[in-house]
Amino acid sequence: MSTPEDHTADHNSSKPSRRSLIGWGGAGLALGAAAAGGAVAVARTGGDADPAGAAAGGPVAFHAAHQAGIATPVQDRLHFAAFDVKTDDRAEFATMLKDWTAAARRMTAGKAVGEGAYGGLAEAPPDDTGEALGLKPSRLTLTIGFGPSLFGRFGLADRRPEALVDLPRFAGDNLDGARSGGDLCVQACADDPQVAVHAIRNLARIGFGKVSVRWSQLGFGKTSSTTPEAQTPRNLMGFKDGTRNIAGTETDRLRKYVWVAESDGPDWMTGGSYLVARRIRMHIEPWDRTSLQEQEDIFGRDKGEGAPVGKAKERDEPFLKAMLPDAHVRLAHPDSNGGATILRRGYSFTDGTDGLGRLDAGLFFLAYQRDVREGFIPIQRNLATDALNEYIQHVGSAVFAVPPGVRDADDWWGRALFSASPTEG
Amino acid sequence: MSTPEDHTADHNSSKPSRRSLIGWGGAGLALGAAAAGGAVAVARTGGDADPAGAAAGGPVAFHAAHQAGIATPVQDRLHFAAFDVKTDDRAEFATMLKDWTAAARRMTAGKAVGEGAYGGLAEAPPDDTGEALGLKPSRLTLTIGFGPSLFGRFGLADRRPEALVDLPRFAGDNLDGARSGGDLCVQACADDPQVAVHAIRNLARIGFGKVSVRWSQLGFGKTSSTTPEAQTPRNLMGFKDGTRNIAGTETDRLRKYVWVAESDGPDWMTGGSYLVARRIRMHIEPWDRTSLQEQEDIFGRDKGEGAPVGKAKERDEPFLKAMLPDAHVRLAHPDSNGGATILRRGYSFTDGTDGLGRLDAGLFFLAYQRDVREGFIPIQRNLATDALNEYIQHVGSAVFAVPPGVRDADDWWGRALFSASPTEG
Repeated sequence: MSTPEDHTADHNSSKPSRRSLIGWGGAGLALGAAAAGGAVAVARTGGDADPAGAAAGGPVAFHAAHQAGIATPVQDRLHFAAFDVKTDDRAEFATMLKDWTAAARRMTAGKAVGEGAYGGLAEAPPDDTGEALGLKPSRLTLTIGFGPSLFGRFGLADRRPEALVDLPRFAGDNLDGARSGGDLCVQACADDPQVAVHAIRNLARIGFGKVSVRWSQLGFGKTSSTTPEAQTPRNLMGFKDGTRNIAGTETDRLRKYVWVAESDGPDWMTGGSYLVARRIRMHIEPWDRTSLQEQEDIFGRDKGEGAPVGKAKERDEPFLKAMLPDAHVRLAHPDSNGGATILRRGYSFTDGTDGLGRLDAGLFFLAYQRDVREGFIPIQRNLATDALNEYIQHVGSAVFAVPPGVRDADDWWGRALFSASPTEG
Repeated sequence: MSTPEDHTADHNSSKPSRRSLIGWGGAGLALGAAAAGGAVAVARTGGDADPAGAAAGGPVAFHAAHQAGIATPVQDRLHFAAFDVKTDDRAEFATMLKDWTAAARRMTAGKAVGEGAYGGLAEAPPDDTGEALGLKPSRLTLTIGFGPSLFGRFGLADRRPEALVDLPRFAGDNLDGARSGGDLCVQACADDPQVAVHAIRNLARIGFGKVSVRWSQLGFGKTSSTTPEAQTPRNLMGFKDGTRNIAGTETDRLRKYVWVAESDGPDWMTGGSYLVARRIRMHIEPWDRTSLQEQEDIFGRDKGEGAPVGKAKERDEPFLKAMLPDAHVRLAHPDSNGGATILRRGYSFTDGTDGLGRLDAGLFFLAYQRDVREGFIPIQRNLATDALNEYIQHVGSAVFAVPPGVRDADDWWGRALFSASPTEG
């Protein structure tokens, strides 16, 4: 499914702000990046609000102040993977990150991983697995994150950001360790699922021996929108949720709630963000036997239009006091959480059955924020009394520090983290 | 991803043949169906070659001589579910099949399951789960099949078709019982995965207490094409496989290899077909470390273009003797199997990880044929020596009798099977 919002370019992103130049290390560097990054980067480099997305099917810029895949208009499909590190060799790991960056630069541009993918040496393994040959770039974005456990390795302990806290245990959590955590993660979003699956698979291939896939999640359909003109996609409960999401064009809100500022520290995270991933299983069978009135009371919206209680339209300002005290919209609203605001980017999943005749389906929740302690944690604490909890359960959880964007052809994922560390140069 | 082939209407389908009229029970009935079936049926009813698919995003006819979802141009996404029967009450089960049929008729037309889905009684559960509200019909097709085990119930033993054999054990099979078999199945194909997931979920909801989901499979991308003008989509090994598939427009080949003829028996299967479903796990990590030459030798095609060994283009006639004796294309070719030919309709899947750091990914193989004993079984037996077997493993298996299409608004899935049974009317 391709919706109109996918093709909305962010015209606000063309004017770099002072802050974006700081994020890039200065104007000279920013301009250099545009020159060095090739055609793709030239076309869409230099924004503060992040490259918002290219024309239909086209590439999203890889070189930018912030990583793409956050403020970028939400693509239709997701493949997300968390990795465990298998090497103790810091140089080997850094080399893998460089190789990953080079591969990501090519894949997001719609190219095969290697230059001569199928004109190369027949006796060598192909340098691309091939299943995306002939497919469009499909607005592929690849977004890397570093988990708390990574900082227990490679002499990185004192580089761990304060804001990268281990998530507390929340009421109702029923977490599966095999679907939680990870030393690092890559979020692949694209309008064509084959393009997203191909990207994760090729990174796993390149990382062979250095990392292994800890868990992965396919998201078949987006449940959030970062383009306010579009309707919010429905989740598997049939409701529009997260209507008041931060838009990719809302530079001020992104700066306030999503991007790590220089003053936040550490330096290597300036222009980055923090990602919380939660696998939320929905008990859809009991939900489906719940009356329409109760469903609407639980959400605080009507099901057909998605309007808040007592209002006519989805985007009408909600009147929280008209809702039940434990209505989902009411409890999740910034006014109930001291203003806590996150950028949501979740996807619906269905992973077969649970062995008990029920579909294993739900929401793979992804939220970006400037500080997890002021974003997801207070919101989720407040949702402890959410009426929705009778019908959902959090079964997987992870948190990652998402570094800023790759600046130019010489930059690589994690360079600032690894270069500035006391144990290496 | 939407490809040009999706929008190809089958202009050959507008002229009913004698055989299709027999399948429909006579011309009067056929015309009656067109009148009774509403706008959708009127638009595309009466073909022998099956409704080939509507215009972009539009509905595919539900009322037809054959079930849609077989010769229909392959949609982008799949949700497939196998069900176990939980009731011993034959009338209750037949009522459920009628309810399923009514729901399928509406959903394939792009409508909610119930008339007044969200204008109904607030104190009742909604008669549609809602997540497909506002989405296009997306060429949704719903195709039902009856497994061998169903015929052990409801006094149907003597109605079991001879051709519905239990599959033999094949060399290399490593079947998971929890992902095999099933009393019945529904294949949902659509260009929007949310539409396919919604359809299966609502059938499961309607069937609550009567059936439960035994296993289900999401297919994120098609690997076959039934429209010869389009390129064959690549599988997760990066190859085009099944290039010489039966096209939805090849009426003669469909009649010869796919549709059950009146002379084949039993009567209730005339115009139906047999479906073999196999979950084929790919060991993609070792595959990715195999040289390009070896990969191409194993398939008998080049990877870039997909041309058979020694040929220039994908659709050039393969010269089998130029290939290694155990090349996949050579062993799967009709010339190596006494002419055995099947219609392939498989999808790629990726279902997270296997707990060993590897992606659980592969091909969900779906093949339709007039007789399993002359289709899948000889082909799969011949593939015992397939060089590809080092890199794949069959881990799930099922076979189903797929009855003919629903004729009109009064007809329902399985009517001929249940009505003609000795223990009822």
